Amino acid sequence: MTARGRGEFEKIARLASRFARTAEGVSVGIGDDAAVLAPPRGRSIVWTIDEHVERTHFRRELLTWADEGWRSFMAAASDLAAMGADPWCALSALVLPPDFEDDSLDDLAEGQRLASDTVGAPIVGGNLARGEGVAITTTLLGTCERAVLRSGAVVGDDLLIAGPIGLAGAGLTALERAMRDPRLRPAIAAWLRPRALLEEGKALGAIAHAANDVSDGLAQDALHLADASRVCIVLDEMELRAHTGDALVRAAEALGLDWLDLALHGGEDYALVAASPEPIVGFARIGRVREGRGVVLATPFGERAIEPRGFDHFGQ
Amino acid sequence: MTARGRGEFEKIARLASRFARTAEGVSVGIGDDAAVLAPPRGRSIVWTIDEHVERTHFRRELLTWADEGWRSFMAAASDLAAMGADPWCALSALVLPPDFEDDSLDDLAEGQRLASDTVGAPIVGGNLARGEGVAITTTLLGTCERAVLRSGAVVGDDLLIAGPIGLAGAGLTALERAMRDPRLRPAIAAWLRPRALLEEGKALGAIAHAANDVSDGLAQDALHLADASRVCIVLDEMELRAHTGDALVRAAEALGLDWLDLALHGGEDYALVAASPEPIVGFARIGRVREGRGVVLATPFGERAIEPRGFDHFGQ
Repeated sequence: MTARGRGEFEKIARLASRFARTAEGVSVGIGDDAAVLAPPRGRSIVWTIDEHVERTHFRRELLTWADEGWRSFMAAASDLAAMGADPWCALSALVLPPDFEDDSLDDLAEGQRLASDTVGAPIVGGNLARGEGVAITTTLLGTCERAVLRSGAVVGDDLLIAGPIGLAGAGLTALERAMRDPRLRPAIAAWLRPRALLEEGKALGAIAHAANDVSDGLAQDALHLADASRVCIVLDEMELRAHTGDALVRAAEALGLDWLDLALHGGEDYALVAASPEPIVGFARIGRVREGRGVVLATPFGERAIEPRGFDHFGQ
Repeated sequence: MTARGRGEFEKIARLASRFARTAEGVSVGIGDDAAVLAPPRGRSIVWTIDEHVERTHFRRELLTWADEGWRSFMAAASDLAAMGADPWCALSALVLPPDFEDDSLDDLAEGQRLASDTVGAPIVGGNLARGEGVAITTTLLGTCERAVLRSGAVVGDDLLIAGPIGLAGAGLTALERAMRDPRLRPAIAAWLRPRALLEEGKALGAIAHAANDVSDGLAQDALHLADASRVCIVLDEMELRAHTGDALVRAAEALGLDWLDLALHGGEDYALVAASPEPIVGFARIGRVREGRGVVLATPFGERAIEPRGFDHFGQ
């Protein structure tokens, strides 16, 4: 553990009282140098880490601390969903400015706790450090029988998707513009309170050849899958339109943006994309895997290559 | 995984080329949504996270990026040492400003890799995010037969220590004052390149009743042990003086500081303190456990209570 200053021990006690709970396989939780766990029998361990940094991933005027606690936790949990894993437990490392209020800390921790309850992975330890802006790091352990990797897509597979895409990106834009159009409500909710698709992820386990979550935008994350599997992914515009439904189209209209642009490049929805030889419950088809490299969009007027642009947060 | 911007994927590839390696029990390392591990048989899992934040834990003008990579990794590994655990593998989450140079990133990663090689815990994944200052989060998994907790100290135990104390705090002061006195060299080295005392930690396993690492200063970390075990810890000034040796006294002289003050309140040495019913190889006696609460210093002139002050980094 890194050295800490005065006042931080009180904050740690405050967090411990909120997070402290028992869980299967957790012998020692918060309060020692490290957590102690009993290893799962007959299952693999899946391990991920993710970080949300103030002014990069969020601005405090756009959301509550409870929202940020929730979404930072779900962003990490989504990586477990993409591997087909069951969440087990989590550690949380917080960087807080010296003037961060106890009420704000309570809200942040409450959002984390709610998300951790929702996915079934208690927070069993962590770290607290001072810094100039808030940063929230979440590391999660999960277990699975068979991890679904990015690299297994096979020519001839369908490309499947579960969960919304483009909505969270639209929601962030709406919040930045302080727009109150009712057509934007589902989009704003999608950005503030995303859900890691853990049930859908578990459905992948026995069937899918490859999977990835959509954090950087569909074009970017489909390219990760294509690159890792050394294949070409063809996205079908009409199938994509059928999957996204009207919520995205209405939000795009309210913002004066193109729904397809949002669907391809908007990030932070935490949808799951999978390459699979057969249909999977909870997933819709939005394309296919063929020989070649890169990502291509099939439209009624022909095909065009898609250049991923990533998801650019606040334009930094 | 949280959404990332352009340029970050190149940096991830740069890190992956440096860290990528196989290790026992690691099925999937860098390059997927999460790492996949085979659980250890017949051993507990120990899990810790630690974070080093620029301007709180280090200032870039005081050290090289390789130093900071090393020391941030060792700070996290020290928690495993304090539990008597064997390091297994690690994830690294970096926050980097947009203008962080590739050469600096290479140096930072090299320091991390060297430390990870030294403790035998390869870096098998991580995260990269933009921010205004550098922050380095390290989470480590270890394994052990029996974890040594903070809470097991028993009245009548000896208080034992392994490793230097006070030296790193003296070294940081020397660096801040830009002093080149040769008496300060061991102190500066102690701050720049601390070592997690893993072999000593493993020696605790079968014998010690309780243990803790000294990151916040001996007074503070002894108090953690005393509080968790509901006992009083008596530190013996003369035994402490015998253990610290002349390096600390000379450094204190050069700085015009009191060696005992440095020994009690200087942090970041990553010594180990343990409560034990019998001697342990590699450890020296510096006190004992008795009934009561808190931490007391026994001097040739009588006893006095010690108020922990934590280790205050840069006085923030």
